[in-house]
Amino acid sequence: MNPVKVGLLGLGTVGGGTANVLRRNAGEISRRAGRGIEISHAAARNLDSTKADMTGMKLTEDAFEVVNDPEVAIVIELIGGYEPARTLVLQAIANGKHVVTANKALIARHGNEIFTAAREHGVMVAFEAAVGGGIPIIKALREGLAANRIEWLAGIINGTGNFILTEMRDKGRDFADVLAEAQALGYAEADPTFDVEGIDAAHKLTILASIAFGIPLQFDKVYTEGITRITREDVAYAGELGYRIKHLGVARATDEGIELRVHPTLIPERRLIANVDGVMNAVLVKGDAVGPTLYYGAGAGAEPTASAVIADIVDVVRTLSSEPATRVPHLAFQPDALSDKPVLPVEAIETAYYLRLQAADKPGVLAEVTRIFADAGISIEAILQKEPPADSPDATVIILTQRVRERQMNAAIARIEALDTISGAVTRIRLEHLASN
Amino acid sequence: MNPVKVGLLGLGTVGGGTANVLRRNAGEISRRAGRGIEISHAAARNLDSTKADMTGMKLTEDAFEVVNDPEVAIVIELIGGYEPARTLVLQAIANGKHVVTANKALIARHGNEIFTAAREHGVMVAFEAAVGGGIPIIKALREGLAANRIEWLAGIINGTGNFILTEMRDKGRDFADVLAEAQALGYAEADPTFDVEGIDAAHKLTILASIAFGIPLQFDKVYTEGITRITREDVAYAGELGYRIKHLGVARATDEGIELRVHPTLIPERRLIANVDGVMNAVLVKGDAVGPTLYYGAGAGAEPTASAVIADIVDVVRTLSSEPATRVPHLAFQPDALSDKPVLPVEAIETAYYLRLQAADKPGVLAEVTRIFADAGISIEAILQKEPPADSPDATVIILTQRVRERQMNAAIARIEALDTISGAVTRIRLEHLASN
Repeated sequence: MNPVKVGLLGLGTVGGGTANVLRRNAGEISRRAGRGIEISHAAARNLDSTKADMTGMKLTEDAFEVVNDPEVAIVIELIGGYEPARTLVLQAIANGKHVVTANKALIARHGNEIFTAAREHGVMVAFEAAVGGGIPIIKALREGLAANRIEWLAGIINGTGNFILTEMRDKGRDFADVLAEAQALGYAEADPTFDVEGIDAAHKLTILASIAFGIPLQFDKVYTEGITRITREDVAYAGELGYRIKHLGVARATDEGIELRVHPTLIPERRLIANVDGVMNAVLVKGDAVGPTLYYGAGAGAEPTASAVIADIVDVVRTLSSEPATRVPHLAFQPDALSDKPVLPVEAIETAYYLRLQAADKPGVLAEVTRIFADAGISIEAILQKEPPADSPDATVIILTQRVRERQMNAAIARIEALDTISGAVTRIRLEHLASN
Repeated sequence: MNPVKVGLLGLGTVGGGTANVLRRNAGEISRRAGRGIEISHAAARNLDSTKADMTGMKLTEDAFEVVNDPEVAIVIELIGGYEPARTLVLQAIANGKHVVTANKALIARHGNEIFTAAREHGVMVAFEAAVGGGIPIIKALREGLAANRIEWLAGIINGTGNFILTEMRDKGRDFADVLAEAQALGYAEADPTFDVEGIDAAHKLTILASIAFGIPLQFDKVYTEGITRITREDVAYAGELGYRIKHLGVARATDEGIELRVHPTLIPERRLIANVDGVMNAVLVKGDAVGPTLYYGAGAGAEPTASAVIADIVDVVRTLSSEPATRVPHLAFQPDALSDKPVLPVEAIETAYYLRLQAADKPGVLAEVTRIFADAGISIEAILQKEPPADSPDATVIILTQRVRERQMNAAIARIEALDTISGAVTRIRLEHLASN
């Protein structure tokens, strides 16, 4: 059979990696796919600065030329960002072309519109590379766990954030210090907001939750909290108590609705996912039949991302001639079978908590605090009291609570902060046991 | 669309679990598959002793009735063992039915024959449940990593063995003692040979290696060593040196051929896979583009296995109407593109080693031993010498070596065992760093 001709938008890190892997492993890939895959047309904003080997490709600086090329059967969108990516993808779809994209921001924000257009035109939009880099987590959730009611998932889905938290723990360093190093190493962008404020993770969580629960993409409903306020003291105290702090995306289905939240989280150090360090990613998924499963690998980088992009191309090639109705639905569930379960406001989520407070070092203070928790019906799991340093009148008190609604915790914290014997704000970090039940 | 009718062979643990999950999650599954799945006909050796809810199924004690039922589109083989499973599967294929099986022994030993028959009749044989229970590892390797040249994989693929080794380490217990407990708990069979001698793991490794490297199934060429000779002392010494002992299936592609081996293995304790404990399974796969990825979950049990069986049914349902040539090939690679790379004999494999020897407690002994290694070109990584206990004239010496051919190590060990100052045989456990390169 003739090779399938694909058009590549973007020849940066991932685009170059995709071109390189397709070339290097051409034999291996066509032995699997039963058909060659050839980049026939590629677009880059600035062709002169591109480092990929572009032998045999038609080249342009106008991405619309690729999207409108009648020879191209599959468009690979590796530009990133909302626009012009959205317009290009919609144009490709309108032209009857299948699309493979690594663009999580685009799918999280415009996926509902894009998938509707794709259905109308009978084409596929594949996005394995949008979450977890080279880890085939989209495929695992959409296909591998198809027998399950997914109960919850929790993922380390931003490598930059995980690198920073790992360094803070291993070396007792401060956030700002490690961030500067991550920027120097190229792990963090010059503007690190998307990574350290959790927006990138929220994009990915939006996608994971939709395919896990069969709900529309609802990026604007994700509760998102970054890691910028995590101190090395919190990391150390968590360690003393047998926990590690990870920046998690958590999605959970409850009777009332769906929890969608990205925030720093204490996890028991004996959990496998607590030991996922550096820039690596992992997603833990709990299905009712399969129990807990975990998927681990490189969450970013040229070739890991290329691995996912090319797997998607092979998948699309296999189903080029199939009836659209028999294909794996974009959001795992048939489009007319999506659930309208509401996404819960953060006040309605239920989780355990790590709290740190500065308390006057005199008798009775702890009794006042624990009385407030008792009144609110919040059970305490552990208390750790640190003697005040020489220059401070206040002791540090760490409290771990059992699971409680965020709303109740907010009320309790407000009462505690109003105590004369407590200085400043209470630091609160959510805690998840991620046990299998 | 009408529900797809499937026939179920075997209503034991996995068969019952499959029936239960299909019923409980019928809504969830058909929301994904776009079509209902209905067990219309089921066979069990003894229907009276079956605990599954069989409402609405035609029942028989003759499995061939199911295989020959014209209404059945997909046959689910959950009987296990070689026969009559092989004959039933071949008959189902001859009747033009697709097959889903959890039978690793059958696929490892008779897969080449079965897949050839399936191709001739244009049907699929799916076997996700044959390896790693509910972990979608077959899908990850065949499809998710399709862009990669797989360099090696290493898996904890027998839950019983991993439970025993975990208990030995956590509680300092002996092998025989833990095995008896595992049998009482139902984690180990009355005849535990398949688990503790590595045969079950070898079946699974055979399958993983074929789909990773595109080679025919070659079960009889797997080097297989069980865990029965692991002592609690070895587990403790390994721990002192920063390693854990796991029973691994290892497959590696070298320039000369394929290494296929199942044996106890020391792994650095900081590796994620070293922390996979109890009955859980995990497979670590190194691809040239994606780097290391890991897949973790329950490797056995009624519902985890059912999860994989049903995922396969959904996959088969999706491709019922597709051209056979476009389907994912049984062994990941197109049947005419399999590799004839030879499987290497164990003497040709390359690995690091943990050695334990009993040496006379006098000067010069260690010099003799290290001289033998130096002569053989074997580099030593670490030596740990234990003072002899009061009742013994011999000290215990632990040596970790760097990577070397097994053939060279055999020769060195023979020379060491011939020394007057060494008592008894040298204990040898292989050691793998499982680093990402």
